Amino acid sequence: MTGTLYGLGVGPGDPELITVKALRLLESAPVVAYPAPETGESLARAIVADYLSPAQEEIPIRMPMRPDRFPAQDVYDRAAARIASHLEAGRDVAVLCEGDPFFYGSFMFLYGRMAERFPVEVVPGVTSLVACATAVGAPLAARNDTLAVIPAPLDPQEIRARLREVEAAAIIKVGRHLAKVRAVLDELGLADKARYVEYATMRSQKILPLAQVDGEAAPYFSMVLVHGRGEAWRL
Amino acid sequence: MTGTLYGLGVGPGDPELITVKALRLLESAPVVAYPAPETGESLARAIVADYLSPAQEEIPIRMPMRPDRFPAQDVYDRAAARIASHLEAGRDVAVLCEGDPFFYGSFMFLYGRMAERFPVEVVPGVTSLVACATAVGAPLAARNDTLAVIPAPLDPQEIRARLREVEAAAIIKVGRHLAKVRAVLDELGLADKARYVEYATMRSQKILPLAQVDGEAAPYFSMVLVHGRGEAWRL
Repeated sequence: MTGTLYGLGVGPGDPELITVKALRLLESAPVVAYPAPETGESLARAIVADYLSPAQEEIPIRMPMRPDRFPAQDVYDRAAARIASHLEAGRDVAVLCEGDPFFYGSFMFLYGRMAERFPVEVVPGVTSLVACATAVGAPLAARNDTLAVIPAPLDPQEIRARLREVEAAAIIKVGRHLAKVRAVLDELGLADKARYVEYATMRSQKILPLAQVDGEAAPYFSMVLVHGRGEAWRL
Repeated sequence: MTGTLYGLGVGPGDPELITVKALRLLESAPVVAYPAPETGESLARAIVADYLSPAQEEIPIRMPMRPDRFPAQDVYDRAAARIASHLEAGRDVAVLCEGDPFFYGSFMFLYGRMAERFPVEVVPGVTSLVACATAVGAPLAARNDTLAVIPAPLDPQEIRARLREVEAAAIIKVGRHLAKVRAVLDELGLADKARYVEYATMRSQKILPLAQVDGEAAPYFSMVLVHGRGEAWRL
């Protein structure tokens, strides 16, 4: 009997925003794997730190954060091999995923390597998308609003085109693209409807009108919500 | 001291997909309110039925399901008044929300009536969006994909315009708009990439390639996922 690979959504940051199901599976897994920077602490692990036991074997998947190296396929190959050896020995492995495993998550790189060889179960999680809406205190989308999730690394003209047909938008992965995002929203007259959210639901959470955010870059875990034309905003 | 109004995301259907936080607040609330049809069972209540205690007072918010009556403002006015009387007496009230309270949820109708008069805390939940992606077993969006959430009641040309600029889409509230949605996706050559999901994570869950779905209408809790051009799909 091989073990099962669990892809567990651990939610956006507040440890209590893990689901009952993910917590149960996490606590019963003998092996726990998670993404981590090359040096320093893993955010996914930090979220669930209080739920882990010293008896669990941990596999940090240390990923170079340089864009030219991402995704580092060799790192995933090695992680997959190490996880596979546990599964072959009959041990379940829980992979921690910030937010939800299938919503812009790096879990897909392991999933693609393992899903045909081993039983895999994915447990959905609370996304940063709805966590940011909660933090801002305003419904994200309602009724017949179209909501777009737009990655900030896209070109300005691509971001502009994607914003044109929607009532509400979440611009994700803002990071070093902050100045570009602000310029596009300014041009479309949407900047005064945009809110900037950093580290939603975490102790370091920060919410600002986009116009008040200084500088050219933001942390990776930041998002800009644009409610500009949606029905939700007009309530 | 007035009570606090809690808007609790209870997740997409599987009772274990509630968060630890929402469960804690639900169990400690003396009063629990939830949307319900005019006759019959409330889905939001059914999701958490095993967590409720007979000591809790329940307030079903019975909503006429006829589109011409929705949202029935008088129903929300009466529910808000009844909830307000508990809050004024110092009792917390938990409002159950399928999925997430701020993601196309009816909670916003109560939120709009209460947020300026009482302390309100919203707890985000697992959305049907990520639950459907999990059910289908495929990442919803990845890397620089743009994902659009498109309500099926829109006109065909609006749906078409919103699909044009994105790599992945979730068409929600399919219900009686099934035939129209299928026609639009056919026309765009996306029908063979589309999956139909009904009652994700519930015992009655059903997943089909869109081409194999018969009939003109679907249940309200159904969604069509289109991964057609996304990076996630190509993995």
